[in-house]
Parts: sequence; C-alpha cells; structure tokens
Amino acid sequence: MAQKTAITPTRHEDYSEWYLQVVKEGELAENSSVRGCMIIKPWGFALWENMQAHLDKEFKRTGHKNAYFPIFIPLHLMSKEAKHVDGFATECAVVTHHRLEADGKGGLVPAGELEEPLIVRPTSEMIIGESMSKWINSYRDLPMLLNQWGNVVRWEMRTRLFLRTAEFLWHEGHTAHENAEEAQAEVKLILDIFEDFAKEHLAMPVITGRKSPSERFAGADDTLTIEAMMFDRKALQAGTSHFLGQNFAKALDITYQSKEGKEEFVWTTSWAVSTRLIGGLIMTHADDDGLVLPPRIASAHVVLLPMLKKEEDKVLDYCYELKKELEALTYHGRDVVVEIDTNDRGSRKWDWVRKGVPLRIEIGAREVEAGQISVSRRDKAHNERESMTNAELVDGIGNILDDMHKNLYNKALDYRTENTKEIKDKESFKAFFTAKKEGDIHGGFALSHWDGTEETEAEIKNQLGVTIRCIPLDEPESDGNCVWTGKPSKQRVIFAKSY
Amino acid sequence: MAQKTAITPTRHEDYSEWYLQVVKEGELAENSSVRGCMIIKPWGFALWENMQAHLDKEFKRTGHKNAYFPIFIPLHLMSKEAKHVDGFATECAVVTHHRLEADGKGGLVPAGELEEPLIVRPTSEMIIGESMSKWINSYRDLPMLLNQWGNVVRWEMRTRLFLRTAEFLWHEGHTAHENAEEAQAEVKLILDIFEDFAKEHLAMPVITGRKSPSERFAGADDTLTIEAMMFDRKALQAGTSHFLGQNFAKALDITYQSKEGKEEFVWTTSWAVSTRLIGGLIMTHADDDGLVLPPRIASAHVVLLPMLKKEEDKVLDYCYELKKELEALTYHGRDVVVEIDTNDRGSRKWDWVRKGVPLRIEIGAREVEAGQISVSRRDKAHNERESMTNAELVDGIGNILDDMHKNLYNKALDYRTENTKEIKDKESFKAFFTAKKEGDIHGGFALSHWDGTEETEAEIKNQLGVTIRCIPLDEPESDGNCVWTGKPSKQRVIFAKSY
Repeated sequence: MAQKTAITPTRHEDYSEWYLQVVKEGELAENSSVRGCMIIKPWGFALWENMQAHLDKEFKRTGHKNAYFPIFIPLHLMSKEAKHVDGFATECAVVTHHRLEADGKGGLVPAGELEEPLIVRPTSEMIIGESMSKWINSYRDLPMLLNQWGNVVRWEMRTRLFLRTAEFLWHEGHTAHENAEEAQAEVKLILDIFEDFAKEHLAMPVITGRKSPSERFAGADDTLTIEAMMFDRKALQAGTSHFLGQNFAKALDITYQSKEGKEEFVWTTSWAVSTRLIGGLIMTHADDDGLVLPPRIASAHVVLLPMLKKEEDKVLDYCYELKKELEALTYHGRDVVVEIDTNDRGSRKWDWVRKGVPLRIEIGAREVEAGQISVSRRDKAHNERESMTNAELVDGIGNILDDMHKNLYNKALDYRTENTKEIKDKESFKAFFTAKKEGDIHGGFALSHWDGTEETEAEIKNQLGVTIRCIPLDEPESDGNCVWTGKPSKQRVIFAKSY
Repeated sequence: MAQKTAITPTRHEDYSEWYLQVVKEGELAENSSVRGCMIIKPWGFALWENMQAHLDKEFKRTGHKNAYFPIFIPLHLMSKEAKHVDGFATECAVVTHHRLEADGKGGLVPAGELEEPLIVRPTSEMIIGESMSKWINSYRDLPMLLNQWGNVVRWEMRTRLFLRTAEFLWHEGHTAHENAEEAQAEVKLILDIFEDFAKEHLAMPVITGRKSPSERFAGADDTLTIEAMMFDRKALQAGTSHFLGQNFAKALDITYQSKEGKEEFVWTTSWAVSTRLIGGLIMTHADDDGLVLPPRIASAHVVLLPMLKKEEDKVLDYCYELKKELEALTYHGRDVVVEIDTNDRGSRKWDWVRKGVPLRIEIGAREVEAGQISVSRRDKAHNERESMTNAELVDGIGNILDDMHKNLYNKALDYRTENTKEIKDKESFKAFFTAKKEGDIHGGFALSHWDGTEETEAEIKNQLGVTIRCIPLDEPESDGNCVWTGKPSKQRVIFAKSY
C-alpha cells in the first residue's frame, strides 16, 4: 500500500468527501451506531475543552453564573410558546417509557409508559424560563444572568459531523432584564464576545449582523449572528445571540415587581455557540494535507518526533527535557501542550500533518549533538523547516504561534474579501451563484440590496438555494434597488449559500 | 414574620426534612417539574465545577484523555451484556419517537416512531466499548485511557436531591488493558485519586474497600469503593472503581493482537463519581445553622458584607479593594473567590450562614477607620469573630482556610470513629441498628465478621435494612466467627444502613 500522505480527495475534487476525510484522518470525530449522533475523539474533544475554557471565563467575567437544568422538557411545557414549539416539533426526540421488560422471546421491549411524554431538550428556553418565573420576584433579582454547558438533541434528517448532528454539545446563555434596552445591550455584549473569540482564538474572520425576520430563532424578536465564509464559499452561522422580547416572559409568566411597585414582564435573551464551531474551523483553515489547528485552541501546540535509530536514550532524554521546558510556559492563558510520538513508523510525520498540530519537530542524534532543531509550521509547506536552537524555540514559541495565528487569520480574511462581491443586477447575481468553477467551489458572499420582503427572500431561496445570512451591523444605510426585484431598498445585506 | 435564622427542623428533630431545608436554604438545588430531575442552582453548580476542575486535572495527570460519546444507546447494543442490562432494565428512559405532530385537538403527540428504541444512557460501558472494539487493534493501542464528563439518566422511583435523581451529572472513566494486573492497578490508582480527593478537598473521611459480590456494579468482576459516614450514621457510597474483567470485552468483541501475535480480549475498567458527592458533603459538614462548605471546593471563599449606613462610598471602596487583593491570590490551585453582598437586608448575615461560605466579614465605617476587620468562620459559632488587620487576612487566608479544612476533616473523622463499633454477637448487632436514640439518628458502622455467603447478607438486609458497605482494604485477615451465623470467618467487614 502506498504511503498515505495528503487527503484524498482534494478540496477541489470533492469538497464534501474531503471534509469527511479531514475529520477522519485528523482523528477528531466519527459517526456512531446511533443515527446522526457523533463520537468526539480525544483530539477533537480537546478543541472543545479549549473553546469552553475561554468562553466560560468570558461569561463569568461579564457576570454570568453557570447552572444546570433537566435534559427533559414535559410536552405541555414545551408547547407553551407557539412559535417556539412549531420551530422544533419536527426534530424532537421523545421519551415515552421508563423501563425495559422481557418480550417473552428472549428480547427486551420498552415498558412503563409515562403519563406525559418528555422531550429531550433541543434548547432550554422553556425549562429555564419556568425556573426564572419562580426565582424572579422583584427588580432586585434582575438582571438574572445564567449559562449552561451541556448536550442537546435535534433530530436532523441529514447530518454531517460537527456541522449538523442529532446530539451536539453547546452552551446556552439565558438572561432576564428589567427593560428592552438592557436586554438588547446584553445581546450585543455576547455577540462581541463571540466575535472576539472567533477572531482572536479561532483565527476565523466573521461578519456580525442581524438576521432577517424569516431567519430568526423560533420565538425571538431579533437574532444577531456571526457568519463566517468556509473554503467552499458557503456561509457558516457560527454563533447567535437572541433578543426574545417578552415572548417567553408572557408564555411562562416571568414577572417582577418594578421599583415603582408595578408587576411587569421581564425581557429575556438567549445565546449559544456549539461544537459546530469545530466544523467551522476545519473548513476555514484545513487544506489538502488535512487539518490545520489555530494555535490558541489547538489540542496540542507542539509534537516532538524523536528519531530513535541512534543514541536512543540521549534523544529521548532531550525530548523529555524540551517537553518539560515548553510545558512550563503558558500561551494565551493556558499551558503549552507538547506531545511526544515515539512510534517511529513510516507514516508518523504525515499523521501529525493531518492532525494539524501547529509545530512539528523531528529530533535525532544529529540535532541533539548540534544543539539545533528544525521546526515545521503547519501553516507552511510540509517540507519547510526553520532551524533554531532549543533556547530560541523556548523563548520564541509565543511569537511563532502568534505569527501562525495572524497568518491563518489574514489568509482567511483575504479569501473572504476576494470572494465577496457587491452585486447590483439580477443576472450577475444569478451567475455568481450558479457558475461552476474549480469543481464544486464557487460563488461566495454577495453584498446586495434587498427590498425587505419575505416574498423576495423566499423566491431567491427557492430558485438559487441562497439566503440572507445577515444584515451587517457595520453596513451604513444606503439607497439602492433590490438586486432581485429592482424595488427601492435602504440597505445592503449578505446573500450566500450556507450550512 | 420572625427573622429566619437556623434551619427548621434540626437534624435531630427530622433528619430528612433538615436535609431538604439545608439544600433549599443553601440555594444549592431544587426539584424541577420533571419527575425526579433536579435543577442545580449557581451556588450548587459552582461546587460541581470545582470538583470537576480538580478531578479532571488528576485524570489528565495520570494519562487519561477526555472524549464524548452519544447520549443514546440502541436497545440491541444495551442488551449485549446480560448482567449489565438486567441491572439497568428497570430504570431506563426510552426514546421511541423523533418528532411531534398535531393531535387534531390543538395539542401535540409523539410521532415518527423509531425503528429501534433508544435508551438514554444510564452509564456508557456499551457505547464506549463498541468504539473501543473499533479503535483497538494491537498492543500498541493499549492501555486506552478514556474519560467522559456528562449527564446520565436512571429512572429512580424514589428520588432525593443530589443523592438519587433521575438525571445526574458525573464523569465516567473507561479503560482497556493488556492484562488483568494492569487493569487492576488502574482500578486501584483511581480509587486512590478518589480517596485523596474526598479527604483533601471535601474534608470527608472515607473508608476504602471492596464490595461484596452482591453489591458489585452490574457486569463487574470486582468493585472498589470509598464509603463515608453521614451525620445520621448511614453510609454513602461516594465513588466506585470497577474491574470489569473480560466481560464487556467478550460481549463487545474488544480484542487486540498481542506482542506475540495472538488475538486476545482486552481487560476493561470503569469508574465514576457524581453530583451525589454534593449530597455527601452536605451530610458530612452541614449543621443546624445550614450548609458548611469545605474551603477547597467552596463556591466562594469569602463574603464581604458592607454596612452602608455611614460613609457608604468609603466602605464600598474598601470592600472592592479588599476583594481585588484577595482575588489576586490562589488557594489550592484555584483563584480565591470573594462575593460582596451590598443588599443590607435584615436576613443578610443568616442567608450567608445558611449558604455555608467559609468566611464572613462585616465591614462598616468603624472597621475602615480602625483598619481592623472581624472575620467569622463558618466552622465556629455564628457569633464568634476574630479581629485582624486587612493585611493579616490577605497574608493569612491560606492558613485560615487550611485550619478550617483540618477542623472539618477531624470533626468528621472523630464522629465516624465514635460511631464505628466492633461487634461480635448477634444481639448487640441487632440492637446497634435498631435502638432509637437522639430522634432518628442512631446506629453507625459495625465492624464485624461475615461468613462470606450471600444468604447471610440477604438475611441481614431483609431483617435490618443493613448491608455490607465494604471489605476494608486496610483490614488485616483475622480469624473469627460471623456476627450473624457464628460460622467461621476470615475477615471483618463494614455493615451499615446506607443511601
């Protein structure tokens, strides 16, 4: 069997299959025997742990407290907010029995039917809102700032590892406020945290914007989003922050006594990012050689590859010493993590290329002797190496990783800039999204005027499979004509195909 | 209404109700509208986060990697290990449908019946073992050391907050090894981590021991346990570590190619602690004034209670400055956490007594003026205060908290020692477990000889509600006669009532 090197197929040959192969060869995750549910392997789970650690710190810094609410939602409770339950009804896993009993043929069948079916939470507005209605009495209890880390289940018919799975991991923030302004400020505060996290930790450029009404969260009055461009030029919704108005407060009777002594409904928000972000960073940074992990959330920063043919003990000692020195350092708030792979199989270098570790260092008797090591950066060509002393690496690792972070970010930003077009006429708009070039990778983000109607949105979606990803927050109002209908429009929006 | 101070009822008046009131007044958790599922409130969840942080570090230090496996287990997979499924069949929540549809009467009903029912995991041996069977090929893949943090569901008919809930949070370690010795060493390594954690972080003395065969985990060849004595003198099983032999390896076909080139079954282990530990620390340390949090896992270490009648700004500034100084410190590997409660309601002091915060400090204009503050320790009487300067507190907080930790530990250890009796004859044994004294609080641990038969165990359980909690690891073999049957016995075991 030929040595396995790069990913087969390449991105341009078959993008979907390339994605699956990157996830597989990168040892991030795999499908389980449960339809649509994934297994996150240690190398993939470490990414999620690193994301969690950073975001959790940010949520706490801004006054949020973690809590935990039941995974089950009674059917009658789930049904209390009409739009909300409509939005999730087609994807609810339902528990109906509470034990197993013998079927008389050597097998087991569900038994003990529940009086009321329980929904496995697809999101927790209803169950957390129910508690808020008990916990909140007066303005002194506000704002109430809660967050929960956990799993949720949405029974998707077509699933793809990380991007759309029946079960996924996420956090969900839920807050209650005295008035709309405070709640809206919260929604924006969280969006800023998401934006900063995407840029500064995932090296993922994002556009911040507002969803059009038809793309809002089920039950929200306003949804803010961060949208990223993937390598196939589709958009990925990478995080959302929802202003829920008083919809859930009214459905669940969440009221407080105001300073003036009046009974008022609270204003609530909710917001989340999920393991989907891992899919996003794969499709932002990975290449035809496999995964490329942005250094600030990488599962490990460095792998040492000792060459053990000569002077095995000396080489190994050198590696353990170097690992110790590096692991005494911190990089962006967490300890530097160093792996040593002593199994000198033929595929070793390429295994680590495909796992996307930021820095690879091969160390043999010659390197130990000379006091010089060769460092390969995953964001450069696989055969490129930079020679430096042990001390130069230890002193400079923060700078090297920062440089890699910037390089990845700028590359992704340039790619998005290249593939974002201001489009004013319908024919160019259609051509942009239908012209096939470079295999299946085509189109991009169209910045175009929209007449503001759901009908136009629906027509574009039906004809081109293109939706409004967001109305960018930093896009000034400008008079123009809708790219589809020619009707007057006040603002340009981002149109794209999406995940 | 009279000022609420201590907990009503006291421990001796009604122990079960006292427990529920401590949980409630301590703002740790409450029942949800889902039968048997609890809501863990922020003050309670912080305890779990602190436990997680410490244990996660220990598991990683000993080479374990975190991963994540699906919450659902297909029925056919769950059924593959006969004893295992028998052990859990009566408490399985079963998902049978994947959507909701209108019932034509304005309501919703489960629809989209699944081809195969899915069990909400009560534990993950089967689903993780299935992956191990794919991931393990050769001895080079061993040991495989995995851990998962997550939620599980066991449909208990009688539930009690933290101690026995339908859903609970835990971690579950799952490992595979080349031979029995290695697997057994792993089981003991983890037990040592649990023991150390209980003693050094929860200030909870525990007895390490081996379960009798009838008390083993369903499917295990051997179960090691840490057992703690609660204030009502019942035992709490606080953590277990299981040697699974080759039972799951055979049921799931987990094999590897040995160094000699032979196909062999692996040897597996599993081990866990859960949110039950929170119930354990309540019943170890709490008193008739409410919760007492051991300082190394306390949700916060200090609460500052500014008295704002005079010189409000000066007092508040002083508090924020002191909080900043204290929070720059670390105590046992985590940042010192300080709360400031500015709402000077009449119940404020007692609210914090009942929440069990280790140190309470009231600060008014006089204290700021004099540069002297009065520190109240939760392990001492509620009206006891120690006067010290700001600097003495900042410099000495580690020592103060350590002293409190030791005090709590010793108190609990003395209590267990006082209430552990060597009992040799049946009449004394019966009297020990049936004599009523001090309300409902009676009995304790009996260290007695057992003839080693399941029949004797069952008889004692039926007559007295007493079980063998463990065969202590540090108890030397000694000849004697069974306390129940008088038959010859080689070792003494711990008998107790238990949670």
